[in-house]
Amino acid sequence: MPLVGFGLWKVPAESAADTVYNAIKTGYRLFDGAYDYANEKEAGQGIKRAIDEGLVKREEIFVTTKLWNNYHEKGRALEMAKAQNDAWGLGYLDLYLIHFPLALKYIEPEKLRYPGWWMDAEHEVIQTEKVPLQETWQALEEVVDAGIAKSIGISNAQAQLLYDMQSYTKHPISSLQIEHHPYLVQPELIDLAQEFNIAVTAYSSFGPQSFLELPPAFHERAKGTPLLWDVEPVKQAADRTKKTPAQVLLRWATQRNIAVIPKSNNVDRLKQNLEVTDFELTEEEIKAISALDKGLRFNDPGFYLHKPLRIFA
Amino acid sequence: MPLVGFGLWKVPAESAADTVYNAIKTGYRLFDGAYDYANEKEAGQGIKRAIDEGLVKREEIFVTTKLWNNYHEKGRALEMAKAQNDAWGLGYLDLYLIHFPLALKYIEPEKLRYPGWWMDAEHEVIQTEKVPLQETWQALEEVVDAGIAKSIGISNAQAQLLYDMQSYTKHPISSLQIEHHPYLVQPELIDLAQEFNIAVTAYSSFGPQSFLELPPAFHERAKGTPLLWDVEPVKQAADRTKKTPAQVLLRWATQRNIAVIPKSNNVDRLKQNLEVTDFELTEEEIKAISALDKGLRFNDPGFYLHKPLRIFA
Repeated sequence: MPLVGFGLWKVPAESAADTVYNAIKTGYRLFDGAYDYANEKEAGQGIKRAIDEGLVKREEIFVTTKLWNNYHEKGRALEMAKAQNDAWGLGYLDLYLIHFPLALKYIEPEKLRYPGWWMDAEHEVIQTEKVPLQETWQALEEVVDAGIAKSIGISNAQAQLLYDMQSYTKHPISSLQIEHHPYLVQPELIDLAQEFNIAVTAYSSFGPQSFLELPPAFHERAKGTPLLWDVEPVKQAADRTKKTPAQVLLRWATQRNIAVIPKSNNVDRLKQNLEVTDFELTEEEIKAISALDKGLRFNDPGFYLHKPLRIFA
Repeated sequence: MPLVGFGLWKVPAESAADTVYNAIKTGYRLFDGAYDYANEKEAGQGIKRAIDEGLVKREEIFVTTKLWNNYHEKGRALEMAKAQNDAWGLGYLDLYLIHFPLALKYIEPEKLRYPGWWMDAEHEVIQTEKVPLQETWQALEEVVDAGIAKSIGISNAQAQLLYDMQSYTKHPISSLQIEHHPYLVQPELIDLAQEFNIAVTAYSSFGPQSFLELPPAFHERAKGTPLLWDVEPVKQAADRTKKTPAQVLLRWATQRNIAVIPKSNNVDRLKQNLEVTDFELTEEEIKAISALDKGLRFNDPGFYLHKPLRIFA
């Protein structure tokens, strides 16, 4: 799995094929998608175009995608993995993740294709469903056995859940994807995962910046918190290394063997984001950046469950 | 379940019977024990003495105790609950908790009666064991079915684990016991538990103070952090209410319907700690105290697992 990938969250379906194709041209080989991003088919088309033109081979590309919360029941999870794999159209998935360890009530795709953190037409609030995580994990193991995905993992899990999962996994948890930036460092969780040989991927590496496009409820969380481009430890490291603050933020992760999946619509930044493994931060710089930690989580399932109307209204 | 109880952690076995007996005289009705505290038999003797002398009836007393980490496997958990119930000698337990959601390798009690976070004689480090939490919970459900405990719950669990447990419980999770003080507030976890109708009990209500008697490794965690008696929001609320800072810290919890289980060897303080439900803090005082939160956890299983020698050497 490459240490730098391209994150497909918030990439519009209309432009996803071109965006992905261009990202491959720029040098990206890992694409991080999800059912919920509603652009799997288009992202797959971009990859296929690059393969058809001989730019890359399928086996040089690493495709991650994720199972959404409404399909955690065993049969539905397997069915959904098949459908997602068909949408990508590349023969197999490299990594299939449980998007959140949080089962929501099944909603027929015919009624609402991408439920997100939204209620369905019949309900005012999100409906949860009692599906043990173990059941969902067993479904993912079947996804591997059926040749649909090469490896499986989980996103947005806390340490205790990882620990409990380790007691019943037959196929290993290959990867953990978490929100990880200097305002939310989660060092114990990362230590535990790396100790279990679970590859860690960071999302929202730029912290508050990643949530500026979202509704105001997200901004409130960041009130009074400076953008990470503007904080001293990041600026100082950028000055010393002659890199951009964004590159410093990404290197802060990759230097600790944590993969990153930034996204950009700007061609120059796309290229810069990829060049974040060939310079070194000092240990002091990494420590000073990590010391910005304030447990500030933007992507919080508890928040969605309790205030979905307020967030998305 | 009373809102104020007496915590038996660190109460020496030699004096536990007298301590408990005197606590009952002072008015305590809830006793919070654990296999790991190594004083269950003696605590039970203190309660029996009070019952025999007609001070209280069995049904007026609430006994909580906990299953230790080395006995999480189904058969062993049931066996251990029976043995602990016999040690207390009061006919039944009111509440039986999983002490930590963390299974360790079985150690025969004949070899090491109270393993704690210690390695056994044959190993240099603590050995974990793969026991799904669901298996242990099913054992606790059998403990209820067998009439050994009236209710069951868990201690030291994170939100995601509680959420997953809810998907497979047949008997409800009656109680969650967690480290909770103004330096470690965990508001989302408490909201989730209360929403699930799980009674929350706070331990280590005085924060750093509770760990002063323990080895230096614990003190390092609190370096530069003032004792909670000495911080302004606590002192100001104590001045206004004419209560002690300790009473303010306990009221900060009970006023939000969180039970507390302080311990004291001092008779006056024993009485003061009990009088923490009959005065009111203002909403501003509660907020100001909660704002001291810095995610400072003293009782951290990850810490024990990784550095047992350094902690207890």
